[in-house]
Amino acid sequence: MQTLCYLSAMSLLIKNVILKGIRKDIYVNSGKIEKISSRINKKANQRIDCKGEKAVLPGLINGHTHAGMILLRGVGDDIPLKDWLEKKIWPLEKNLTADDVYWGTKLACLEMIRTGTTCFNDMYWFNKASVQAIKEMGIRSVVGLVLLDFDSKGTKENLEKFWRIFQKRKFKTISFSIAPHAIYTVSQENLIWAKNFAQKNNLILHLHLSETEKEVKDCLKKYKLRPVEYLDKIGFLNENCVLAHAIWLSDKEINILAKRKCTVVYNPCSNMKLSSGIFPYEKLKRAKINICLGTDGPASNNNLDLFEEMKTGALLQKVNAMNPVIASAAEMFNTVTKNAAKALNIKIGQIKQGDLADLILIDLNHISLIPGHNLISDLVYSCSGDCVSDVICHGKIIMREKKVRGEKEILVQAKKRAKKLLNR
Amino acid sequence: MQTLCYLSAMSLLIKNVILKGIRKDIYVNSGKIEKISSRINKKANQRIDCKGEKAVLPGLINGHTHAGMILLRGVGDDIPLKDWLEKKIWPLEKNLTADDVYWGTKLACLEMIRTGTTCFNDMYWFNKASVQAIKEMGIRSVVGLVLLDFDSKGTKENLEKFWRIFQKRKFKTISFSIAPHAIYTVSQENLIWAKNFAQKNNLILHLHLSETEKEVKDCLKKYKLRPVEYLDKIGFLNENCVLAHAIWLSDKEINILAKRKCTVVYNPCSNMKLSSGIFPYEKLKRAKINICLGTDGPASNNNLDLFEEMKTGALLQKVNAMNPVIASAAEMFNTVTKNAAKALNIKIGQIKQGDLADLILIDLNHISLIPGHNLISDLVYSCSGDCVSDVICHGKIIMREKKVRGEKEILVQAKKRAKKLLNR
Repeated sequence: MQTLCYLSAMSLLIKNVILKGIRKDIYVNSGKIEKISSRINKKANQRIDCKGEKAVLPGLINGHTHAGMILLRGVGDDIPLKDWLEKKIWPLEKNLTADDVYWGTKLACLEMIRTGTTCFNDMYWFNKASVQAIKEMGIRSVVGLVLLDFDSKGTKENLEKFWRIFQKRKFKTISFSIAPHAIYTVSQENLIWAKNFAQKNNLILHLHLSETEKEVKDCLKKYKLRPVEYLDKIGFLNENCVLAHAIWLSDKEINILAKRKCTVVYNPCSNMKLSSGIFPYEKLKRAKINICLGTDGPASNNNLDLFEEMKTGALLQKVNAMNPVIASAAEMFNTVTKNAAKALNIKIGQIKQGDLADLILIDLNHISLIPGHNLISDLVYSCSGDCVSDVICHGKIIMREKKVRGEKEILVQAKKRAKKLLNR
Repeated sequence: MQTLCYLSAMSLLIKNVILKGIRKDIYVNSGKIEKISSRINKKANQRIDCKGEKAVLPGLINGHTHAGMILLRGVGDDIPLKDWLEKKIWPLEKNLTADDVYWGTKLACLEMIRTGTTCFNDMYWFNKASVQAIKEMGIRSVVGLVLLDFDSKGTKENLEKFWRIFQKRKFKTISFSIAPHAIYTVSQENLIWAKNFAQKNNLILHLHLSETEKEVKDCLKKYKLRPVEYLDKIGFLNENCVLAHAIWLSDKEINILAKRKCTVVYNPCSNMKLSSGIFPYEKLKRAKINICLGTDGPASNNNLDLFEEMKTGALLQKVNAMNPVIASAAEMFNTVTKNAAKALNIKIGQIKQGDLADLILIDLNHISLIPGHNLISDLVYSCSGDCVSDVICHGKIIMREKKVRGEKEILVQAKKRAKKLLNR
């Protein structure tokens, strides 16, 4: 497999690549971007010559997903949310095995790699299986250790057990978050415990927040507070919080989120498909809140392509505000790069000497980039993930000229597991 | 080039292809689907064996576009509509040459072919150049002969001249429409003339209608009638009308459109990107009006991928109505197949013996179709046009295993023209 450059490289030299419109060489060593210059002639274990026909971008970052859910892609679309959850997703998820999640996560990683995502903020079950899959795929991930009352998999004890196991291992591309599912599925006591546990171990807190209007109404009924007010009252909110959805927010809540320096994750396709509502992008932006972009799980999207997500995210905001100027291509690009890197506290999301080498190469001869008047516009409004030709994560080539190692087996095994799961 | 099967085939045998979940053989002869059966062993000039790993679908139909505008892709995004038109698009279009439109149309056809579109309803300038390009690409099109006051290219005399030229030629895949641009750019006299000319020659009438609220307000001011009321009053509306956008409609106008059996074309990406408004899909559907889907021109989308358009179209309706049940995947698929075929009055849009052989093959091993619980859901919600492997138009293979003849030259020439155009 030498010719396909799959081997883990200590060093990698990328020649003649277009970086912000200018031809550059990039030297990568031990997982990091060591040097960017107009000409580098260092020896390297691996070498890619782009001949000026490829652009380099930071690998994209998916701010919120449930990778393993890909086995349920296409199961129950166009039905009410309650039926989707109660009649389709939950009964099937009850039968999930670690083996299912292993192959599902591999399939999801493969789809992310193919569409230029090098890092994803995940929240799902069977963490040992998903960690193994992610490690094998060579992609970067913040794996959520899930807390959920009334599910034996989601207990504090289980979470602590996983944390003990994972803490001992040295992962190059995997870190962890504490992921209490939501305020309506995790008790106040457990939310506080999660917050303290995350703080103690310097981990991200990953939570679903105000995805539906019902969540807000129920919270008001129970606590006489809106979700953000409630979370703030119990001391949950801080700059480590990555809050997915964040649709139904009052101005007061937005002020609290800004004050506590929380990150919010916009999931346009899922929010539209499930009719959850419209993310208040402009208000959050004006409050200077850090905004990321996520696909949500592939069962409610139904794919993991962040190029598509950027476009849909921009377009939805424009038509909703009846203002074509807002949610620009450049802003959308930031949500999947530097904003997300900041949220996850990882040195990625831009191409900078000393940062981690998570890079993607874009085929500038791809039809969606022709004629090519404006790269960022083309990336956001014209491209799908199909324009990505090569993917490098932590300095290692994980896709070369659209080829990913072991792809065929993943497709076959994931398909087999998904079929079995539906007949279980 | 024999191996790539580019030669025009008198007959074509497609073996072991999945049609509505069942393995079939399809025999195509002289541009038509001659036979569909579980096993066909006829001799044919060309043969594709799908080995059960590809699905066949009717080629998709783009209900409204301006193909040649692709040279302006990415010129002026995220700016107000007035600036976009007046400062960017119109000044550049003034400098367009026939050669630009020829290469632009070739590029647009190439992108459509690659994303599974075999027929498009076009409206643009330099018809001789665009017809030549479309003919060479082997795609099907209804070419709009544009009528527009105050532009020397858009006169009745010019339109009649084109019609005289084109009428004499026998095109296999090209037919024509009369395309008065809009009520605010074409006089009442010319609209009536267009309608009579179309009727006399049995042609489609292709018109922009109520794309912006301003159009409605201006019309009310000028005629004390809303646009549809005005068009009906002057006798313009009939079953040959294909009305693009149709966003700002009153209930009374919807009733008129239903009574006159008009077709409307939903352009979700463009309507969102330009903040034109939200197409009243459910109301139009309830009125039993024929609904198609279009990308609009690639300068306001910014691509020509109908797979993406179907998803965005469904998702926008769901979130707007806060109802995940409406605008289903199956309905969206109909808008780009049988509804559009009906609107354009061409025997395509379904796979039926005796109909024209406009077919696309879908790679069932494409990652966006894995695990593959529900093909229509996957096509609409998960796929981009990248899942299309082969395209057949009028019985002729125009893409084989993702390869299209002359692709490289088209990319180079279109890029060159676009660059020149911006510097002209």
